[in-house]
Amino acid sequence: MAAFVPAVAAVGARSSAWTAPAATGASRLPTAAARSARASVPAGLTMAATKVGNVAEEKLKSADFDTKVFVKEQVNLADTSEYIVRGGRDVMTRLPKAFAGVKSVGVIGWGSQGPAQAQNLRDSFADFGVDAKVTIGLRAGSASEKAAMAQGFSHEDGTLGEMYDVIRQSDFVVLLISDGATAMCYKKVLDAMKPGSTLGLSHGFLLGHMDATGDTFRDDVNVILVAPKGMGPSVRRLYVQGKTQNGAGINCSFAVQQDATGTATDLAIGWAVAIGAPFSFQTTLRNEYRSDIYGERGILLGAVHGIVESLYRRYTFEGMSEEQAFVHSVESITGPISRTISKRGIKAVYDDLPDDAARATFAKAYTASYKPAFDIMIECYEDVECGNEIRSVINANLRYGRLPMGKIDGTRMWVVGKDVRAKRVEADIPVDPFTAGVYIATMMAQIDVLMEKGHVLSEIINESVIESVDSLNPYMHARGVAYMVDNCSITAASGSRKWAPRFDYNLTQQSYVAIDNGEALDAGLIDAFVNHKIHPAVVECAKLRPSVDIALSGSVADDAARSTMMSA
Amino acid sequence: MAAFVPAVAAVGARSSAWTAPAATGASRLPTAAARSARASVPAGLTMAATKVGNVAEEKLKSADFDTKVFVKEQVNLADTSEYIVRGGRDVMTRLPKAFAGVKSVGVIGWGSQGPAQAQNLRDSFADFGVDAKVTIGLRAGSASEKAAMAQGFSHEDGTLGEMYDVIRQSDFVVLLISDGATAMCYKKVLDAMKPGSTLGLSHGFLLGHMDATGDTFRDDVNVILVAPKGMGPSVRRLYVQGKTQNGAGINCSFAVQQDATGTATDLAIGWAVAIGAPFSFQTTLRNEYRSDIYGERGILLGAVHGIVESLYRRYTFEGMSEEQAFVHSVESITGPISRTISKRGIKAVYDDLPDDAARATFAKAYTASYKPAFDIMIECYEDVECGNEIRSVINANLRYGRLPMGKIDGTRMWVVGKDVRAKRVEADIPVDPFTAGVYIATMMAQIDVLMEKGHVLSEIINESVIESVDSLNPYMHARGVAYMVDNCSITAASGSRKWAPRFDYNLTQQSYVAIDNGEALDAGLIDAFVNHKIHPAVVECAKLRPSVDIALSGSVADDAARSTMMSA
Repeated sequence: MAAFVPAVAAVGARSSAWTAPAATGASRLPTAAARSARASVPAGLTMAATKVGNVAEEKLKSADFDTKVFVKEQVNLADTSEYIVRGGRDVMTRLPKAFAGVKSVGVIGWGSQGPAQAQNLRDSFADFGVDAKVTIGLRAGSASEKAAMAQGFSHEDGTLGEMYDVIRQSDFVVLLISDGATAMCYKKVLDAMKPGSTLGLSHGFLLGHMDATGDTFRDDVNVILVAPKGMGPSVRRLYVQGKTQNGAGINCSFAVQQDATGTATDLAIGWAVAIGAPFSFQTTLRNEYRSDIYGERGILLGAVHGIVESLYRRYTFEGMSEEQAFVHSVESITGPISRTISKRGIKAVYDDLPDDAARATFAKAYTASYKPAFDIMIECYEDVECGNEIRSVINANLRYGRLPMGKIDGTRMWVVGKDVRAKRVEADIPVDPFTAGVYIATMMAQIDVLMEKGHVLSEIINESVIESVDSLNPYMHARGVAYMVDNCSITAASGSRKWAPRFDYNLTQQSYVAIDNGEALDAGLIDAFVNHKIHPAVVECAKLRPSVDIALSGSVADDAARSTMMSA
Repeated sequence: MAAFVPAVAAVGARSSAWTAPAATGASRLPTAAARSARASVPAGLTMAATKVGNVAEEKLKSADFDTKVFVKEQVNLADTSEYIVRGGRDVMTRLPKAFAGVKSVGVIGWGSQGPAQAQNLRDSFADFGVDAKVTIGLRAGSASEKAAMAQGFSHEDGTLGEMYDVIRQSDFVVLLISDGATAMCYKKVLDAMKPGSTLGLSHGFLLGHMDATGDTFRDDVNVILVAPKGMGPSVRRLYVQGKTQNGAGINCSFAVQQDATGTATDLAIGWAVAIGAPFSFQTTLRNEYRSDIYGERGILLGAVHGIVESLYRRYTFEGMSEEQAFVHSVESITGPISRTISKRGIKAVYDDLPDDAARATFAKAYTASYKPAFDIMIECYEDVECGNEIRSVINANLRYGRLPMGKIDGTRMWVVGKDVRAKRVEADIPVDPFTAGVYIATMMAQIDVLMEKGHVLSEIINESVIESVDSLNPYMHARGVAYMVDNCSITAASGSRKWAPRFDYNLTQQSYVAIDNGEALDAGLIDAFVNHKIHPAVVECAKLRPSVDIALSGSVADDAARSTMMSA
């Protein structure tokens, strides 16, 4: 096998992707190197920041993996390459080998992911001869017992029990309770686990919490992650479709944090394949929680909310009717812009603009918005990286009993939106070039921060592009901003509330003011955009999309998801 | 001396002040006790929050003090009492005793507080026979050398030197460099200090940073704080006036974090008296940084900014002209509302309303705004308490070389404001009852959070009321929001940018929506407001105001302060 050094390749590539143009433009953001020379703090003194998981370490861990059971395939994304594993019914024949030694799987929690993963595992085990029992573990007296029983789990046959009892007897514990609850009870969970057993997580949040508090996992258990790129109900629905329709399913990232038994990697990939992932990408727990928590505060939820609030206000102030302002802000993003990005990549939105005037408007909006968006993006990333966001989420969880989260879609704009949606003719929704410029500048800023912080391209593209246009914007398109934000986890919904107004203010105070004042804008930023290496990589990643889109009901009656919380 | 147990008294009092009305109202915020019963996290599991300085510990430390040199006086604030020390020229005769053993004072830094405190100390020492030399310590090659020399400090007579040289030879090190720089170099500063010498701080930020990183002070030095309640130039100007005009000066809080020599309390009070504090109040370093960093993100800067943005938008949307909207939002708060609160307390604004209709408007705005404001206030406090804000500020400091803070007053609203100010007839500015309701609800929410968190009333009133109406709103009144926010420290200016939009969104999404939808509002909140124990305490504290107001130049030419940063 050829030597594989994506870390080095990507670092070089990153420079050329967006910091290199600084050499030709006047007002481009200076590089980190230039910054340290300018910083007013005494040289040689370092800040007390994250002491764990620096970029190079995390990148190295996610660069390659060994599998004895599955077949890894190399994909080339721009000037880097990564390994992925293809799933599907034919690959599931390998599951008995991947789960060798695992006789009991305890799925803890019955929220969004719990029902989906438990049922998918049970079905895959039965269909492909894995000799392991799937048991649901719940808090004593949990209101979810009935729901689990309705899906065929029962106390009588030992497939339903008290969570710590289940943990004590499981070879593989799949912990799918909420982030806040996980942070509260993880010590007790770890204490209850058998030596040599495996802890499975679908979000790196717990490691983030442990990083922030200086804790570590006991070293005699495996710790692995499989993070499906969609909410639980989709993980179940597409798995069922995948039984007959090749390639249906939800892609997953996977990670091995600790391999006590030497079998953790194949168990992680086996878990992803068993719940129906058509493709699995490697990451690390640390990079997963960083990119996930950051991404949902950014373009996935918070940033797109702040953007449309600021644009709606701007358009109505400029004299557009309220309905038209909603169409040119929200509808334009959640409709044609998202569809174009999903099918043909980010740059296609720009390439499709009808004339020079539209391209000039896009360029003006893009160049004025990129830096103010980047400013908030990097602040957000560094707040996640140093543990602040995790601590804030845990503190917020303790307050919600007393101070529940407020409603975000009661304002006039979202009332107007309801009417607009009712009258919508999908084909008539325009691509507003100003809106496209602001939205895409913010998306690119998110991407550039992740590249600067050393994430692999598959993760960057999933957390900044694919989840946005394929999974989340369709929710806002269907029923407004709260339907998108509040169908996500508490971690995501609280973070979106926190960061949306920051993007709004920075755009309003800086981008739009610069435009209205006719300030000279940095044309180099548009060159950097047009030539950005992410574009071919997005198109490449799109080839790894499942063959069936995440289904989204338009009806309120089917809105069970609202209370179950998705994994974004 | 009678037993003094303010901690118990205040906790009982707090309940009756605003949580008790919950018994008679339907939708009042439940108490913390009720919350823990309702919280969805498993009982008995505690969060990993601040491990240092809980409320009771901090309160006990700030409750009383022993002074061998000065006279402490008891002041009764509502149902609690505190001790204060009166300053002034006649008290300065005690300085030689307070500074006994201190032969060399090194003032490190020449920003806002440095020039003021160094000159005041030098003058007081000369006038009252303190046998100690004041020396300025600066980084080698500092651009501030010339400014220090212009005030009579020089290398030749040993009153100006390289900062670590000065620290090594000082008995008392007054460290007045920026928060970010302090966090970077404090280890080297501590290493350079003589055993038995004293570290003086004017902000508890450093302890906050050390709390967040798990560090502690070496135990063979004193660590004390004197925090003037005004920017450096005012500390100097009013000190000079105080030489001839009795009672002119800036009040200070003081604290003793470590008393290695047994003389730390009197040295702290002596320092406050020597720089001209007419009154000094005790706090702790921890409560100082918590209330200070929180307060400036709240009503002092961030909250008032978010409030006026949201109100201006609301009023223009409702059909007011842009100029009138500015008058009814910003001008109303920074003019008559602030003046009334300053002279006669918070409730006087309500009492002065002309008729029932105005009181009803106030009550509607107040009751709809209190809870959404409280929600952000307590999130902000807990982010300060757990170290998040400190970490964010330090991270932000490292980014500013590359990404400077953006301008906040380029938007249309603040351009309009400039015209409004130019035409202003002070006496014609109305008290808008809706604006008053929103502003005062937010101020009361800030006060209630500080009471819940166990701060003493003098500190609460200084950080929530006096600094707001006497020291900061006058800046916004003179030249707009940036003149207020960006004349403050980097810590304050970055925090205000972060929290202003949060208040704006919560008010816009919750308060104004509730009002516009005609939702039933909680009249009990107005009763709680009218009967709040803070009102007589504010009036009592107002008696301790210096006899001369902080002077504020209206002219741009005199705007040297802009680059020097005040201490708020």
